[in-house]
Amino acid sequence: MDRKVDQIIKGSQSLIFKNAPYIVSAASVVGSKEAEGPLGELFDMAGEDDLFGAQTWEEAESTMQKEACVLALGKANAAAEDVRYLFGGDLLRQGIATSMGVEALQIPMFGLYGACSTSGEALALAGMSAAAGYGEYMLAVTSSHFGSAEKEFRFPLGYASQRPLSAHWTVTGSGAFVVRAPGRRDEEQTCPERVQEDSGLPRKGKTEPKEPKRKSHVRIAGVTVGKIVDYGLKDSQNMGACMAPAAMDTIVQNFTDMGRTEADYDRIITGDLGYVGQSILFDLVRGKGYDIREKHIDCGMTIFDQQTQDTHAGGSGCGCAAVTLASFVLPKIEKGEWKRVLFVPTGALMSTVSYNEGASVPGIAHGIVLEHC
Amino acid sequence: MDRKVDQIIKGSQSLIFKNAPYIVSAASVVGSKEAEGPLGELFDMAGEDDLFGAQTWEEAESTMQKEACVLALGKANAAAEDVRYLFGGDLLRQGIATSMGVEALQIPMFGLYGACSTSGEALALAGMSAAAGYGEYMLAVTSSHFGSAEKEFRFPLGYASQRPLSAHWTVTGSGAFVVRAPGRRDEEQTCPERVQEDSGLPRKGKTEPKEPKRKSHVRIAGVTVGKIVDYGLKDSQNMGACMAPAAMDTIVQNFTDMGRTEADYDRIITGDLGYVGQSILFDLVRGKGYDIREKHIDCGMTIFDQQTQDTHAGGSGCGCAAVTLASFVLPKIEKGEWKRVLFVPTGALMSTVSYNEGASVPGIAHGIVLEHC
Repeated sequence: MDRKVDQIIKGSQSLIFKNAPYIVSAASVVGSKEAEGPLGELFDMAGEDDLFGAQTWEEAESTMQKEACVLALGKANAAAEDVRYLFGGDLLRQGIATSMGVEALQIPMFGLYGACSTSGEALALAGMSAAAGYGEYMLAVTSSHFGSAEKEFRFPLGYASQRPLSAHWTVTGSGAFVVRAPGRRDEEQTCPERVQEDSGLPRKGKTEPKEPKRKSHVRIAGVTVGKIVDYGLKDSQNMGACMAPAAMDTIVQNFTDMGRTEADYDRIITGDLGYVGQSILFDLVRGKGYDIREKHIDCGMTIFDQQTQDTHAGGSGCGCAAVTLASFVLPKIEKGEWKRVLFVPTGALMSTVSYNEGASVPGIAHGIVLEHC
Repeated sequence: MDRKVDQIIKGSQSLIFKNAPYIVSAASVVGSKEAEGPLGELFDMAGEDDLFGAQTWEEAESTMQKEACVLALGKANAAAEDVRYLFGGDLLRQGIATSMGVEALQIPMFGLYGACSTSGEALALAGMSAAAGYGEYMLAVTSSHFGSAEKEFRFPLGYASQRPLSAHWTVTGSGAFVVRAPGRRDEEQTCPERVQEDSGLPRKGKTEPKEPKRKSHVRIAGVTVGKIVDYGLKDSQNMGACMAPAAMDTIVQNFTDMGRTEADYDRIITGDLGYVGQSILFDLVRGKGYDIREKHIDCGMTIFDQQTQDTHAGGSGCGCAAVTLASFVLPKIEKGEWKRVLFVPTGALMSTVSYNEGASVPGIAHGIVLEHC
């Protein structure tokens, strides 16, 4: 067996890529409330009415996904047909926002579902596929939409239902990431395969391009794939509490598998635990002998201003971690401000049927090790 | 870049594994109607009341998934902790049957959604991960349940709604597959890591096992990952017509990518096109210059006896292709009766929200090349 990883330890859940793939570009498309939040200036595109020219929230979400993919591809100077496989998902039943959103791109695709952890799942599989040499470019994309998620999981917006303080506010947004296979970074300035066709002159053979491909300084160094963690909680309006055990499990597993502690990361960034989930996470992690308080950021607590935006526990949804990663986290790694980050999007595994039937809400979290290089 | 595949052709959607992983075991768990059908004798386990001891259809489906996984692991003589990653999915909103079903196994997991094509998606990703050396054992599992699917997509069973002749009958069943990394087949008789602990005597170090690991003669030689194909059809009660274009696209793409025709396969096996979809598939494929009529089998037309079981267009669902593959197809490849099979599970990408909002029902199909070895 040709081992792409250092070693496969029984019981370990992690991979460290010998030749790590790169995130060569990322794009974020968000709604109006997100644009008014603390990260507002950092997003690539914001919609004015959250419908993005569509007739329904679901179509609007699909439109965001497509736009995020197109923007990310543009930044990578790559075309859709350059992308070998797409890994995407969302929160809606039967992942319909993704199916309808990426259809126009005509990229061979794997539909995913990991609740709000899906951006981690997509980046893990895109990274694994690129590191294995299954293609040069992979695309990872996720989305969520406040309107479609409220309809899917709670009540139509028109009902104006009251929300408990432990509830999250689903982020309207989509983040897309172009992952490139390792080993080509030094060649990127020569860009032999694809050039900007803007000269108007006929080209002969492999000429030098007008515009070099984008260099990346962010690599996916490894992944820790999460297990389903169930502490038996049943409150779908307190997802932070449901997801915190899974975040703890994946973070501690990552430390164990890779022989690390919180000291080895500049930041440990969860997806959408919110204020309730964060405090539980700190307690659970402390119970395992680690203290991540100095290193922890939660995307759901970063994307909105809780005091002025009335978002209660914080932002959530497949889009929350994705657009925060694309707009806020990756540029800091790109610049070298942060050298190594553990990105841990978290998901609450439930459906309206499951919690109405009395089932618990287990969590899952996937860890992605991102490094400046 | 270390290429695991022969070459990556731009526009191609396929991988041919240089070192192909094996399907070392498979298991099928089905409901009572499936047990009464033409394949009834071949399934590993059948439920008497389709509830499998659970209180709801959803819990029943989860139970089937867990049982199928446990059975497949048992046949492979492997424990859950030997499995590196699990790839699973189902038809229910938020993939809840899988989340609840595989939770007890505590295997790091990737949740998938590809409608009824999910067994192909799961086998593709499990095969890709095993071929890349990301772990020795991978587990692929999918399920569907007539009761939960009718509730999800149509009407509760108690309504006794009439069904058009083009409608499918969702298969109650779950199929699980243990995929093993390549390059270890010759060593399997020695089985150094895990043995049957049935001797009652203490074991010292790596002794020879009582029972050798199962040898496999079925390998995943390659995959063709499907694109979303949308001919604009909107009839959710005629899924065969919605999925046939995707099946054609993947089959023809496989022929093109691998330089093959129908003559290179002993069988081309679609998931659940049914009688309506099959005739459309034949026409569409003929339009591309191929004739697969002599080689084609559809799992949905195989699992039920249309005449006596009143299943209209045929069986469908994530479980349909999976249990037919596990019980009927793989043993024939194992024995060498069929040397090379193109397995093409097909999915109709829709949700109740999408078709009630007037969206079309696009299809997707993934091709898995299975070879006797």
